[in-house]
Amino acid sequence: MATPNIIRIGHGIFYVTDLERSRQFYVERLGLNPLHEESRALYLRGVEDREWTLKLELAPEAGIKHLAYRVGGEADLEALVALAEAEGLPYRWESEQDRPRLLRLQDPFGVPVAFYAESQKYPWLLQQYHLHKGPGLQRIDHINVMSPQVEAAMRWYMDRLAFRLSEFTEDDEGRIWAAWVQRRGGVHDLALTNGTGPRLHHFAYWMPDATSILRACDILAGALESEKIERGPGRHGVSNAFFVYLRDPDGHRIELYTSDYLTVDPDFEPIRWHLNDPRRQTLWGAKTPRSWFEEASRLEAFGGGWEGQAESELRGLPQHVI
Amino acid sequence: MATPNIIRIGHGIFYVTDLERSRQFYVERLGLNPLHEESRALYLRGVEDREWTLKLELAPEAGIKHLAYRVGGEADLEALVALAEAEGLPYRWESEQDRPRLLRLQDPFGVPVAFYAESQKYPWLLQQYHLHKGPGLQRIDHINVMSPQVEAAMRWYMDRLAFRLSEFTEDDEGRIWAAWVQRRGGVHDLALTNGTGPRLHHFAYWMPDATSILRACDILAGALESEKIERGPGRHGVSNAFFVYLRDPDGHRIELYTSDYLTVDPDFEPIRWHLNDPRRQTLWGAKTPRSWFEEASRLEAFGGGWEGQAESELRGLPQHVI
Amino acid sequence: MATPNIIRIGHGIFYVTDLERSRQFYVERLGLNPLHEESRALYLRGVEDREWTLKLELAPEAGIKHLAYRVGGEADLEALVALAEAEGLPYRWESEQDRPRLLRLQDPFGVPVAFYAESQKYPWLLQQYHLHKGPGLQRIDHINVMSPQVEAAMRWYMDRLAFRLSEFTEDDEGRIWAAWVQRRGGVHDLALTNGTGPRLHHFAYWMPDATSILRACDILAGALESEKIERGPGRHGVSNAFFVYLRDPDGHRIELYTSDYLTVDPDFEPIRWHLNDPRRQTLWGAKTPRSWFEEASRLEAFGGGWEGQAESELRGLPQHVI
Amino acid sequence: MATPNIIRIGHGIFYVTDLERSRQFYVERLGLNPLHEESRALYLRGVEDREWTLKLELAPEAGIKHLAYRVGGEADLEALVALAEAEGLPYRWESEQDRPRLLRLQDPFGVPVAFYAESQKYPWLLQQYHLHKGPGLQRIDHINVMSPQVEAAMRWYMDRLAFRLSEFTEDDEGRIWAAWVQRRGGVHDLALTNGTGPRLHHFAYWMPDATSILRACDILAGALESEKIERGPGRHGVSNAFFVYLRDPDGHRIELYTSDYLTVDPDFEPIRWHLNDPRRQTLWGAKTPRSWFEEASRLEAFGGGWEGQAESELRGLPQHVI
Repeated sequence: MATPNIIRIGHGIFYVTDLERSRQFYVERLGLNPLHEESRALYLRGVEDREWTLKLELAPEAGIKHLAYRVGGEADLEALVALAEAEGLPYRWESEQDRPRLLRLQDPFGVPVAFYAESQKYPWLLQQYHLHKGPGLQRIDHINVMSPQVEAAMRWYMDRLAFRLSEFTEDDEGRIWAAWVQRRGGVHDLALTNGTGPRLHHFAYWMPDATSILRACDILAGALESEKIERGPGRHGVSNAFFVYLRDPDGHRIELYTSDYLTVDPDFEPIRWHLNDPRRQTLWGAKTPRSWFEEASRLEAFGGGWEGQAESELRGLPQHVI
Repeated sequence: MATPNIIRIGHGIFYVTDLERSRQFYVERLGLNPLHEESRALYLRGVEDREWTLKLELAPEAGIKHLAYRVGGEADLEALVALAEAEGLPYRWESEQDRPRLLRLQDPFGVPVAFYAESQKYPWLLQQYHLHKGPGLQRIDHINVMSPQVEAAMRWYMDRLAFRLSEFTEDDEGRIWAAWVQRRGGVHDLALTNGTGPRLHHFAYWMPDATSILRACDILAGALESEKIERGPGRHGVSNAFFVYLRDPDGHRIELYTSDYLTVDPDFEPIRWHLNDPRRQTLWGAKTPRSWFEEASRLEAFGGGWEGQAESELRGLPQHVI
Repeated sequence: MATPNIIRIGHGIFYVTDLERSRQFYVERLGLNPLHEESRALYLRGVEDREWTLKLELAPEAGIKHLAYRVGGEADLEALVALAEAEGLPYRWESEQDRPRLLRLQDPFGVPVAFYAESQKYPWLLQQYHLHKGPGLQRIDHINVMSPQVEAAMRWYMDRLAFRLSEFTEDDEGRIWAAWVQRRGGVHDLALTNGTGPRLHHFAYWMPDATSILRACDILAGALESEKIERGPGRHGVSNAFFVYLRDPDGHRIELYTSDYLTVDPDFEPIRWHLNDPRRQTLWGAKTPRSWFEEASRLEAFGGGWEGQAESELRGLPQHVI
Repeated sequence: MATPNIIRIGHGIFYVTDLERSRQFYVERLGLNPLHEESRALYLRGVEDREWTLKLELAPEAGIKHLAYRVGGEADLEALVALAEAEGLPYRWESEQDRPRLLRLQDPFGVPVAFYAESQKYPWLLQQYHLHKGPGLQRIDHINVMSPQVEAAMRWYMDRLAFRLSEFTEDDEGRIWAAWVQRRGGVHDLALTNGTGPRLHHFAYWMPDATSILRACDILAGALESEKIERGPGRHGVSNAFFVYLRDPDGHRIELYTSDYLTVDPDFEPIRWHLNDPRRQTLWGAKTPRSWFEEASRLEAFGGGWEGQAESELRGLPQHVI
């Protein structure tokens, strides 16, 4: 069976309960560019994105509709259908604005994923600096899924979709608590983190530099919305990225992220972190608020409603929690 | 005779020939905050300024109405009147928006200066980061006057107004080509540069950091207005500041400036630069465009019309000109 | 009685228990420049400092010998002697390396302060960028004293030494919990914070920009010394500065600080913060570790030994403590 | 014939005429890490590099020994041999320190290239921030070859080695003056620029951010070596990167480069620039010194000696030259 060629994480669709309130956060504060505005949906992108990368869809309850990957071409979509059939994964064809053919399936761990080969491109804003707003979110970078089955999910994405491992967290018994896997040569398109789930832990945009991330904090603080800054800014041990985690008005978690490293070498050796290494989460040793470990966005089930969640057998927070 | 207590450079009033075009530059591109907007005038400030620091006044021809210093109190204005009378300098009382009592005089070198002790203050925008626009100009920093009488002017400001010398440029014959003098403990409130004049060479705003200056360049370039970037960005030798020089739509020159040093110690020893030291203008050695040496804004004469200009006896550009 | 002219905070002398270990922290990690190295003392400075600004003195126990202000001239030292005699404050003449005449007195609140008018200057390193080490600490900025008598101390420094108030924290009953007072036109030379004392809460260096502060954190983390990062980095509400607090090997607290604002206007209106305003300590809302409120460096008594400490009548930590 | 899988640009070998003088520049000033030091050679790397990426080899005359690409595996080396034989390109097997099997061939345009699949890896210094020196060069980024046959070379690298085009410069007649081609998903591993050649125009390292590039300039200026700063810093139009060009003691040109964008999408549409668009070279409009267009490093011929050079039929510099 052919391995589908996944290019990169492509978009997320968030259900939000108050579109105007979300618009205020994503457009007025973070400066994402609204490529399309509809009465019940907003299609957003960073200044480098040539297509929308985040859709906000008005809904009675907050959650995640799906997370979509860009694939190389039509043949890769067919390979994914073959995979779904071989493994008995539910799938169907959908479409979204600018993406006429979207293969929606449920991964074996309950995550609603989608795949598309074609999308309408638009002139980017990268060099239209006079039109940049706020801190200048640049491009979609990665997603992080919280799951009670990190190791199994990691193996599935590596074996079936040819994701490559860049970093992982292990305990003394060799059990994997977190994994960062990638397709496009950066640190990750997808991170898997141990916890009750499956849920979306966060959705990340690449920033031009650390200063832009500080500016995002200043802007939220200036607007008296510093409660939306959940964790950081700081330097991750994993990925070496400079980061901050924000919470949107529905509690969806957004990471602003910059300055990781390349993983293109075929003999790149994944970096192993011990679970209790305090440098892993924040190189500088800052503690992580409990909410960061406990709260996440629920995922839509294939047949509608919310995907059921399970607790993880791996219990206990790392030591460095507030 | 009492020495008046000059606190700092306070404001400039620029005559501009197209107010909307100037507004586009100063407000839309540079992000200065319009404190008052009138049909024929705009009153602007940086995010830290608690009062307007630049007034743009519509006029048939571009030039500088005056440059004003903030003084300690009413007694200092009286001391300035006494000085004007003792030296036979023309003076009169004027008023401007928010500044009911403005002592306007012509300094002995033909520069239209004004002094005020009182001005209406407004809440600043420093921590209203969500309202900052563009690169975030922070506060008025200094002015630079081009003059054929640099040394005499330097001595007058030091002797009569107690300015203190921070840096100066000298040639082999001990003639002074440029001087930086200050009252408020930074590198300068006033710089004097050799050349045809008197004219205003530039008007400078303090920036929060070098990155903000790079952002100003990106914004102008994004708007296809890179011709407004005249020189830099780079690091000055004099002042050690990181800078860029811009030209407004009427050719008035604006410097964005950051990261100089303190000069509060009474035994601070002025820094001497040799005229031909290439590190003086740009520590990094970049050449300076000829326009920077030759072009400047004319000044209003005390009785109206433009102040006459004289060439300097000190001739010849420094070596590092393009 | 003449008011002495205090120019700025000038230096601190820290007792440290292991000079080599302290040298490692201050010189190898933070990059302070050792102007003099003796077997039992190190004299350090930032790259802009033209004289030493921090002396580390080997001692059996850690603490603070004194904190010294630079005054305008000899007459100011005499005015301080007159003040000491008028108020019955113990004083004596001492000398230190490069500072032949140091007036050491105990302020009415038990803080060992010293004053000097003259000190040996050395060529600075500001533009010797190739010699800068580590994050590039630039110059001494301020000290922060923890005291159970904040309001009285604030009034004394304002009344007797003409310090000017820039910001203060007040509770509903109008009691002052913290005050920032200055002489040199920045936000503060001296901060006073409520708590058990008198003790030195921290000693601060000015940094060229926020990025340098992030670099200090990276360097400490790289050396596996992230436990020395106590709080931040972040943006203060008070002062608007970007900051991080570090703890040296003896627990003395160092702040790296940048980007505050000017206070030179005579009608500058002090900024009032309510005690429970979470934006006061960190504009971004991050919580402050308990150690930051409770730990500080003890001060040498005038006659030797340690100055006695008292608890404050103002009890209770602000809300935003971890 | 199988297309070899080129992963990325891997290393360059520069002949230098004074190893100590070059060490001073690359190690003391730029802070590259010497992985191996021999009496006649230095092997350098950036803080993210896990292998050496620049070898300096003592030689009687300055020039470039070869430029090497990392390939996926042994099969790719075989595919390259097949290509060389099919096209009659001279090749041989060589070895270098840590790279036991290096396929050295001459490309059809006279450029000495090499390919390797295996190299000894070393622990990186990325998170050893306390060991970083100078401005912190991060990793090898790309090379730029000046050639009178830009279009033919571009087509060959795209057709034979599956490089992908990201940007190109064209004149009104549709002739290509410059091309940026890539394998690893960034803007380029290889740039081709019109001019007398073949010669190496520059060799580039990725920097963590723009501030680090400013720091490199400050360090060179501090050491009185600002003549080594040839062009910039500034923002490229092509690639959108922030950059500076330096010249090493033998005149080899080094670019410090950061903040470009991703090109992983299979339908990425190459960006076309008109030859005379001033934004192409510097978005901010700064002029380029003539040396940048005229000077470059000669290349070793396959049989020894220097590769012959030809002038380009495309004559005339772009307009924006100093």
